[in-house]
Formats: sequence, structure tokens, C-alpha cells
Amino acid sequence: MSIALKPSGQKMPIVGFGLWKVPAETCASTVYSAIKAGYRLFDGAQDYGNEKEAGEGVRRAIADGLVKREELFITSKLWNTFHSKEHVLEMTTKSLNDWGLDYFDLWLIHFPISQKYVDPAVRYPPNLLYDVEAGTMEFEDVPIAETWAEMEKAVGLGYAKNIGISNFCGGLIIDLLRHAKIPPAVLQIEHHPYLTQPQLIALAEQRGIAVTAYSSFGPQSFLELGHTVAQNVGLLLEADLITSIAKAHDKTPAQVLLRWATQRGIAVIPKSNRLERLKENLNNIDFDLTPDELEKISGLNIGLRFNDPADWPGQIYIFA
Amino acid sequence: MSIALKPSGQKMPIVGFGLWKVPAETCASTVYSAIKAGYRLFDGAQDYGNEKEAGEGVRRAIADGLVKREELFITSKLWNTFHSKEHVLEMTTKSLNDWGLDYFDLWLIHFPISQKYVDPAVRYPPNLLYDVEAGTMEFEDVPIAETWAEMEKAVGLGYAKNIGISNFCGGLIIDLLRHAKIPPAVLQIEHHPYLTQPQLIALAEQRGIAVTAYSSFGPQSFLELGHTVAQNVGLLLEADLITSIAKAHDKTPAQVLLRWATQRGIAVIPKSNRLERLKENLNNIDFDLTPDELEKISGLNIGLRFNDPADWPGQIYIFA
Repeated sequence: MSIALKPSGQKMPIVGFGLWKVPAETCASTVYSAIKAGYRLFDGAQDYGNEKEAGEGVRRAIADGLVKREELFITSKLWNTFHSKEHVLEMTTKSLNDWGLDYFDLWLIHFPISQKYVDPAVRYPPNLLYDVEAGTMEFEDVPIAETWAEMEKAVGLGYAKNIGISNFCGGLIIDLLRHAKIPPAVLQIEHHPYLTQPQLIALAEQRGIAVTAYSSFGPQSFLELGHTVAQNVGLLLEADLITSIAKAHDKTPAQVLLRWATQRGIAVIPKSNRLERLKENLNNIDFDLTPDELEKISGLNIGLRFNDPADWPGQIYIFA
Repeated sequence: MSIALKPSGQKMPIVGFGLWKVPAETCASTVYSAIKAGYRLFDGAQDYGNEKEAGEGVRRAIADGLVKREELFITSKLWNTFHSKEHVLEMTTKSLNDWGLDYFDLWLIHFPISQKYVDPAVRYPPNLLYDVEAGTMEFEDVPIAETWAEMEKAVGLGYAKNIGISNFCGGLIIDLLRHAKIPPAVLQIEHHPYLTQPQLIALAEQRGIAVTAYSSFGPQSFLELGHTVAQNVGLLLEADLITSIAKAHDKTPAQVLLRWATQRGIAVIPKSNRLERLKENLNNIDFDLTPDELEKISGLNIGLRFNDPADWPGQIYIFA
């Protein structure tokens, strides 16, 4: 199953593999295994610190004849420190080189946050926390319009088939559409039953922007980061409603949470470091939830966001 | 009591008079009475359709020696249909002429929404609903950056002492600050105990932007507009918590709701067409709520927004 992207017309698989928190040491083999298991979309980012390794997994799979480049859909994301017109294209090619690719299928602005440039020769990826510990968290006044114009050039130069945005709010998306020559093909956002964001989804639909959900399991992804609320709120994977629906369909809670998104046309990018789980996540589209089940799951919404730069040192209120 | 605005240093009264829904027929006398009662700030807008009449009230009060121009603080707002660089300054002077003023103390972008130009000779103000009924609701791709640059020119030309924004979300404010030569002095937002928006308030404080709350009484302002949710949700003015706190301080519920804002440094602009009520609203700063009371009132928050262009025909998701 896939989603036709505008304006390119290219198809994006509705289920992909998210590379956030995949350790660099195991990333190549994880990507290789995932391709073997049937994954065709990989969602990476400069910030994840595993682009070289992910690329290695891809190259090995292609060399072994498991897949062709054109059958894969590779996404990466520009980090906050590279928003200025001096750095966007240069850093696009750096990421392409790290992956060993000629082009990205999708190239996203990771956050609508512009931070001071960090030379990759000095530190890469320019981890946010390091800045804070050093007391040097600094912003740079690069408007989204400047960054987006460079993203558009990346399309013109063939570096990216599609460009898009992540973690953008409604007002900012509407403004971007006013000045964009190439509208964003994809909006990637935190989306799970605790944070359903119906207006944002409606806006994307209204404007022909495909939506990719990250953190589909809600608090689960944030436990290992020591996120207090994630540790205290009930896990979605263990919520009575989710487990009972899973049982009724003879599926796992993870598959139900993913299907809740994909059945509504929203792409998902779960991650797993375990082969079993990885296969399970991919196979979430061979059953349908009832309209009543979809609605009940959406009813779990409490507007609870886990990935909020307002919680970072520096308190960046992009979702206010 | 007043708030010192950045970057001008000018002081803005913390309690003002809001002109939304003040009928044009009675507006001059209402403004005159309000000045007599002690009001010094008037919050108007092109869209309210009463700028000429409000100006007449001001001129009469000045002529009668009740007040001098420099003792008044006059705010107006640029409508959605005048966002393009061809129209901002021209429409600024139109509004000044309507008021009979040389300058505004504060000139705001009413909404981060850009609609197709409507010639004032054809229809003024260009009421939104008219467009919809005629099936001609049309947008115009004017980015905020273009509009803001013209707002800045209005300052340079002496048309406005301060410029600001209304109904902007966090992401859009942060982006505006990246390209603004003159940062916004004021952010005017819907703010009442059912919609407290703590992150947005924190952002404004962090960036030195004064906040003006509109619709301080919550649902009350929307009853007459036939707003279903406003009609069904409990009135804040009749909420047990508010009435009991009012009783404890020998104040009215309205005064408690206003003080909840002003005590936290947030300006308010209540409206009343009745002299008694108008005086009562002005006198909301001669008592203090306890920290516990402030917190309990904030605890009424249910994220309930009444003034949302997503509910307009055309569904504009500026708050998504």
C-alpha cells in the first residue's frame, strides 16, 4: 500500500522503518534485515547519527540482489543547525554521501527551529544536548522561507524527488504554502491516540499534503529517554481498549495502533531492533478496524505530546 | 496600571475597551462615555465596522476637554483582505482617516490569514460571511513576511507607534521574529480560563511581547453569535469557582475573570454597552487574587477555543 505524493506523483509506502534510536553499531544489519523482511521505506535523519550505517545496509541489500534502488524510498531530514542558505545544499550532499545515494526520495526540514551552524568537522551530528551542557545553545535567525527556497533547489538539482516538513504547526504550514514554489509533499508529525491532532490532519488533507505519523506507540518510544510523563501515563500498547481490539482481530496491540493510522491514509514508520517485531509492524494492513473501533481509539486523545522542544533546555515553543 | 511595550518603550494601559460588536449607531456615545468613565485604551479593527464612529467619540471627548490625544492609546487591526504590499499602507491611512487620527498607538495584523483584496469602494468592511454566501471566499498567497515588512514601514512613516499581531500561533511567532526588523510589541489572543494557552503566554514572555487577552469572559461573547458550544458549555461568569471567589473578595465574577489576567501582567479589553458594567470592568485592579485562587481558575482550562477560523466556511486551520 502506498500514498501518491504531490506534486511529484511518486508513491510512498504507507508502512516504513524509522531509524530514530537505531544504534549505529547495528544499523547496517538492521536495515539489511528490514529490507529482507519486506520494508521498502527507511526514515532517517542527520540527527540520528546512523546515516552511513543505514546506507551500508542499503548497499549490501542492493549488492545481494534483494532490492533495487528505485524500489526503495529513502527519507532523511535536515538538522536545525543547517537552515541557512549557505548550508542547506552543502548538507544535503553530505547526507547523500553518508548514505551513498544519488538522491533522496524525501528530504524534510526536521524542525521549524533554526540553530547556530556547527561545522561537521567539529561535531557531527551536532547533538542538541551537547550545546546545552556547554552552555552554548544558540539560535540563528533564518526564516523558514529561506530554508525552504534551498530545499526547492535540492529538488531542481536532483538531490531530492520530494521535499517536506516535520513538526510544523498549522499557522506555519499555511504561511509556507503562500510562498512555496514547490509545496511540501509530506508532513511528518507525532501522531498516536494520545495526540490525534484532528485539525492538523484535516489541514494536510485539505492542502494535499501526505501525513507520516511518528511515535505511533505513544509513550513507548520515550521510556528509554527517561521521559517522566511517558513513564507515568499508561502505555498505549497495554491500554484495555487497544488490547481488547487486538484480541478481537487476532492481532497485536502494535498492529492495531499502526492500522488505526494507515487505515485513515496516514503513513507510519515504526522502529524495532528485533526481527520478529519488525515483521509484525510491517504486516498491519491485512485487516480493517471497524469505524466504531477507529473512533473509540481516537477517543483516547488527551492532547499529550511527548516530543516537544518546549521541554528542551532553551524552551522552544513551536507547538504553542 | 500599564505595560511597557518593546521596542518603543511606550506604555499600554492594562485595561482597555474592546470595540468588537459595539453597534456603529451607538459607538460614538459609548466611546465618549467610556472615556468619561476613565478608559484610555480603545481596541478597534477595520473588521468591526465602527472606526468612524469610535473616532467621533474620541474627537468629541477631546473637544470637551475630557482627555488629550496623547493620553489615549488607540489600537486597530488590518483586515485579512489587505495583506499584500500594495494595500497595507493604503489601508492603514484609510483606517487613520476613519478614526480621524494621525497615528495609531498600536496597529495589529488581525489574523494570519490572507484573503483576496476587496476594494473598499465596493464593500467595506469586507465582511467574511458575505464572501461565503456569494460563494467567492478566496485566498491570496501573501506570506506574513510581506505583510509585516509593510507594517514596519507604517512605523517608519509615523502611522503607528507600535505594531503587533493577533491570533498567531507559536511556530508562526518564532518565524516572524527571525525576519522582523521591528519585533511585534503585542500579541492579542483569545485567553480565558477555558483556554489558558500557557505555552503561548510563556513564549510571549520569553520574547518580550506583551499579551492582550480578548474574550476574557469566554463563552459569554459568543452567545449572541449563535455559537453552539458557547451556548452549551457552562458560563464562566456563572461558574461556582468564579462566583465563590468573587463573593470572597466582594467583587463581581467579571472583575475576577479580568483580574485573573491583569494580575499576571496580561492586558484585557472587555466590552460593555452598559455604563454600570463598563465602570465595573475598568475597576478590576484594586484587589489581588491569592496564588491559590489564580491557580484554581487556571485549572478550569479545557483548551476550548471559541474564535477559530477552522469553524468558518473555508476551514482555515491557523491554530492546528
